[in-house]
Amino acid sequence: MLSLALSYENGILKILDQTRLPSEEAWETVTHPDQMISHIKRLAVRGAPLIGVAAAVSLADFVKKTKCSREDFLKIASRMREARPTAVNLSYAVDRLLNVSMNEIPSEAEKIFDEDVDLCRKIAEKGAALISDGDGVLTHCNSGGLATAGVGTALGVILTAHQQNKRIHVFVDETRPLLQGARLTAWELKKHGIPFTVLTDSMASIILREGKVAKIFVGADRIARNGDAANKVGTYQLAVTAKYHGVPFYVVAPRSTLDESIASGKEIPIEMRGQEEVSAHFNSFNPSFDVTPRELITDIILE
Amino acid sequence: MLSLALSYENGILKILDQTRLPSEEAWETVTHPDQMISHIKRLAVRGAPLIGVAAAVSLADFVKKTKCSREDFLKIASRMREARPTAVNLSYAVDRLLNVSMNEIPSEAEKIFDEDVDLCRKIAEKGAALISDGDGVLTHCNSGGLATAGVGTALGVILTAHQQNKRIHVFVDETRPLLQGARLTAWELKKHGIPFTVLTDSMASIILREGKVAKIFVGADRIARNGDAANKVGTYQLAVTAKYHGVPFYVVAPRSTLDESIASGKEIPIEMRGQEEVSAHFNSFNPSFDVTPRELITDIILE
Repeated sequence: MLSLALSYENGILKILDQTRLPSEEAWETVTHPDQMISHIKRLAVRGAPLIGVAAAVSLADFVKKTKCSREDFLKIASRMREARPTAVNLSYAVDRLLNVSMNEIPSEAEKIFDEDVDLCRKIAEKGAALISDGDGVLTHCNSGGLATAGVGTALGVILTAHQQNKRIHVFVDETRPLLQGARLTAWELKKHGIPFTVLTDSMASIILREGKVAKIFVGADRIARNGDAANKVGTYQLAVTAKYHGVPFYVVAPRSTLDESIASGKEIPIEMRGQEEVSAHFNSFNPSFDVTPRELITDIILE
Repeated sequence: MLSLALSYENGILKILDQTRLPSEEAWETVTHPDQMISHIKRLAVRGAPLIGVAAAVSLADFVKKTKCSREDFLKIASRMREARPTAVNLSYAVDRLLNVSMNEIPSEAEKIFDEDVDLCRKIAEKGAALISDGDGVLTHCNSGGLATAGVGTALGVILTAHQQNKRIHVFVDETRPLLQGARLTAWELKKHGIPFTVLTDSMASIILREGKVAKIFVGADRIARNGDAANKVGTYQLAVTAKYHGVPFYVVAPRSTLDESIASGKEIPIEMRGQEEVSAHFNSFNPSFDVTPRELITDIILE
């Protein structure tokens, strides 16, 4: 199994430390699920689909190597399941391992990986059909190869349109406070040779007003039954300005992001992170996600 | 003459280097207008009204000390006038010195300083009447004592409401890319003991949706005849989300910010700053200001 930010080859599990991009491409070996939990918490491994895949692969590696008891597995799986609260993919992946026998866990983890690659490809092709030659597109946060096992979700749509030889220009919201757009999406776009411009999140309205953006694509961490979608903080404000400017706003996610147990966005748990991510000096507010109501979403693109 | 960020006492002109706040309160002595031009360009001196005042005081100091010729004065005044393009206050202040005789320049500069203090007070009192006890208010960038010779414009309104013993909570947009909110507005609010929370610019929509903000107050760098207002980049997006959430949006500025020569915001020159302010690694977009159309402004508060 090999993706842009996760490698499991010859029994060695490695992750690309995403906190150090774009300055450094540093891979870390992960020898225990508790290390993976720590990498997920500190965002070295991030992106809703990748978190699920990485959790599954790490747990499977542990089961395979330690031949641990069911009881020990349940304990560590439960810690892993709670590493981060908002994305549904993490609990979805862990629950899949919990639903198979101990010796089926390694192949189930591989299935989760392969399915993510396949889902990304399907979603990306479906979304890419919406992009026309010459379009300006805008995205928030990072939902590409760094966020999934495959080509990505929202950014996968954009990468696929480029591979189809459509000429596009990508406007990249920097995505405060942790700059996943300016650091990660920009890094991926550069690797692919796709023209792009980074902007602060609050500049999006200027370029929408200027008519430079034909469509907006964003990922999702959890989608409620009514279609409200949680995604990286700032997504909601982007949807508000998209509505005001009449620019189509698409949420792109695998079907596993749908949480049928939740009626509306109000019930989605929103992770609050440390104040120091926003300000080193003063009191600050730092929800890691926000909820975009269905009424602001043009369409949800699923596989 | 003494304000929060400018001091001219016993013939010694000093400025508080605003690029170093809040970590350090460092005052720099300014012995020549070319130094002031450099401080204005690098944003050590910033805030539309303060730029005008600082330019006038620095030019007056030069005239007084060097007894320079009219010709030399015109040269240096013209360089000063072009230090930054968007705020109308700079050209307004320089033009006032150009319209008096050489020996009236020092007293004209003092008048500009005193008038700014007086205007701030009048505007702040007028605006503070809009704030009710218990209100949450939100502001973008810094328009307080650091941005003017007096109490400030938009932030002056908030500080004055506090002095009137109204209990308020201030939500402070961090104001990317240069964080004038998170660095400067937060610093001023802390000095005054006013409760506040810093948020990334894109989080404003969350707290507006939660009903935590009764009114939004922002400053302006130039206002066109039709009421379109240029202000720090991000103001326009804030106005869009204020409209969507039905939160009143006030622009607060002295009458000298009105540029009668300009019909609409389209004609306001927008300063483009270095890409590295947004991203150290990749191509980026960095207009220092944006224009909020009159239709999104509840009211413009002038003295």
